Amino acid sequence: MDFAATKALFALPEGITYLDGNSLGPLPRTAAARVARTIEAEWGAQLITAWNGAGWMAQPRRLGDRIGRLIGAEPGSVVVGDTLSLKVYQALAAALDLRPERKVILSDSGNFPTDLYMAEGLIRSRGGTHRLVTVAPEDVAGAIGAETAVVMLTEVDYRTGRKHDMAAITARAHDAGALVIWDLAHSAGALPVDLAGAGADFAAGCTYKYLNGGPGAPAFIYVAPRHADRIAPALSGWLGHAAPFDFAPTYRPGAGIERMRVGTPAVLQSAALEAALDIWEGVDMGALRARSIALSERFIAGVEAACPGLGLASPRDPEARGSQVSFRFSEGYAAMQALIARGVIGDFRAPDIMRFGITPLYLGEADIDRAVAVLADVITRDLWKDPAYQTRAAVT
Amino acid sequence: MDFAATKALFALPEGITYLDGNSLGPLPRTAAARVARTIEAEWGAQLITAWNGAGWMAQPRRLGDRIGRLIGAEPGSVVVGDTLSLKVYQALAAALDLRPERKVILSDSGNFPTDLYMAEGLIRSRGGTHRLVTVAPEDVAGAIGAETAVVMLTEVDYRTGRKHDMAAITARAHDAGALVIWDLAHSAGALPVDLAGAGADFAAGCTYKYLNGGPGAPAFIYVAPRHADRIAPALSGWLGHAAPFDFAPTYRPGAGIERMRVGTPAVLQSAALEAALDIWEGVDMGALRARSIALSERFIAGVEAACPGLGLASPRDPEARGSQVSFRFSEGYAAMQALIARGVIGDFRAPDIMRFGITPLYLGEADIDRAVAVLADVITRDLWKDPAYQTRAAVT
Repeated sequence: MDFAATKALFALPEGITYLDGNSLGPLPRTAAARVARTIEAEWGAQLITAWNGAGWMAQPRRLGDRIGRLIGAEPGSVVVGDTLSLKVYQALAAALDLRPERKVILSDSGNFPTDLYMAEGLIRSRGGTHRLVTVAPEDVAGAIGAETAVVMLTEVDYRTGRKHDMAAITARAHDAGALVIWDLAHSAGALPVDLAGAGADFAAGCTYKYLNGGPGAPAFIYVAPRHADRIAPALSGWLGHAAPFDFAPTYRPGAGIERMRVGTPAVLQSAALEAALDIWEGVDMGALRARSIALSERFIAGVEAACPGLGLASPRDPEARGSQVSFRFSEGYAAMQALIARGVIGDFRAPDIMRFGITPLYLGEADIDRAVAVLADVITRDLWKDPAYQTRAAVT
Repeated sequence: MDFAATKALFALPEGITYLDGNSLGPLPRTAAARVARTIEAEWGAQLITAWNGAGWMAQPRRLGDRIGRLIGAEPGSVVVGDTLSLKVYQALAAALDLRPERKVILSDSGNFPTDLYMAEGLIRSRGGTHRLVTVAPEDVAGAIGAETAVVMLTEVDYRTGRKHDMAAITARAHDAGALVIWDLAHSAGALPVDLAGAGADFAAGCTYKYLNGGPGAPAFIYVAPRHADRIAPALSGWLGHAAPFDFAPTYRPGAGIERMRVGTPAVLQSAALEAALDIWEGVDMGALRARSIALSERFIAGVEAACPGLGLASPRDPEARGSQVSFRFSEGYAAMQALIARGVIGDFRAPDIMRFGITPLYLGEADIDRAVAVLADVITRDLWKDPAYQTRAAVT
């Protein structure tokens, strides 16, 4: 895999070293033209007939299969649409239906909050008969029990980059009769994922981080083929109906993953995502992972040598990390502002975490070295105390 | 209002007469450049900092207020996001919470199926304690009773264009202690709507039909200010949290309509919608309605004179119609195919309805007359029997 070649496929701003692709991936060079074509040659010229003529209606499945290849999903088991919060909600509702006698949703304190919030809302809608239990990440496996209906986890922690052992936890859950939902927000495009191999039941993820689908790009959902035809969708929208254009008065779920569709797909966002996925066609996920680890190790070594005041917040074992590196620093917020003002973009998570996404598609050794040098400068010269460096904060 | 001027603001294909803006509005000329700017100058150049720097995070409220002006909503009571199916789900869940002792969702057989499907899913999630009752449109008012928790209606019927009396039904529901949800899919941008004046409780709509926001444009939801701070969102996503970037482990709803947000907004779709809404800035809804009625009457008179075999499926009283005209014709599917092949685009709904959207922003007398002439030609010469005219079908 030639990562110098993939870097050339992104429109990266001059003078910027971008280590925030774990929050919003950068712009693929072909995306603007792809979206413009969809707007002008499809929406503009074909109007309503583009739903079939330009393939808009089938696109969520097509894009789903392309993502499926990157996460070890069976063909036909992934569909894109909506947002990650909603896809988690769908998966969770389906999982609870499949384990009606069990009343516990087990998660961990490292899960991204929206997953927990959506679970709260679902539990309330269902009359409060279930409980959401969150434990420390390292205690998840031991907390799975006879009451556990579903284990709902984000594989890679958004703050620290700590990675769960997907295969082991899935096996443990299945041994106990529970199901597992994997949130792949920080996994898809970040590292090899093998949903089918791990025997995962459900998964969901977003496409605007490591996959580079653009701001507001649609989410995706995976349902294991053994479950897909057995679940009754909670969000039973017309495009998940077996025959949407019959306009029948009652819902009849579509075959398999089709029933996880809800409403009209976001066609313009999908065009940008399609351009982003083109880049992934040539990428070997094993090679990407090796490169991610090499760059991460280089970054950690560089920062630890230059900035002894910063503490590594990510696991030291590269196999236990996703594709980000986080450091704790009490003045991390101000330091990140100063870093951004100097053209090195990472982000900050309260109370003290400075996050850096390591994305081999467009980052090389020189970028890592520059980030280390600028960070060292900011820290050793206390630039974060200087109001001139207090730029606006990066979010998400 | 100069409707010749608004027509010039759309990129309409040469030789096409477009009467399907009730399904997918045409392309505003500025949309491509607006989206390109968002892609290149915001996503590309500003990367993650665009969430605040380019105003992406606040955009759903800003766009909501712009739509709110067209539907008689109070400032701050509308937010865009997700799809219409999901916004109906949110409104319905909130309405049921507000009337816990009542167990009937009342709708009508003219409602768009996805609203009914989403109600089915919600009822199932809540344990089947509620019932969805659908009656004929003309029987709705009489069917509202002491068991009715919420009346859920699409104001304008997607097949016939029949329009409910929003103020009268809302008042009748309130008299009976029930709440009302109005689906404005065929109302927003089609005719004057006065949600606040009618005392509506909730409303939802899409923006890709009469508002011309583009394929997959986000939906919107309205919550009456008197309810907004009292409802516990069923879809409690992080962007509806009071402080999303605190990443707190438990959900705390944002103020007012903010809590109806769920996940990351569709930024590229929103850019196209923003361009579409620019056109609406100068439009007087009363003038639009008068023009819509005049063009509709012209179309009906023309078709009835030329095609006695077609039966008017829409109400004859213009005040009882939305902004579409439908005719019944047993060979309607084939006839619509032939019509599209001749460059007049409407659409078809089983079993026998030919639909024509009347959209004064970009249709004038000459367009109506051409549509009548081509339709007359197709019908009187039986062109629909000719395989040469069997083009691909238009959908939605």
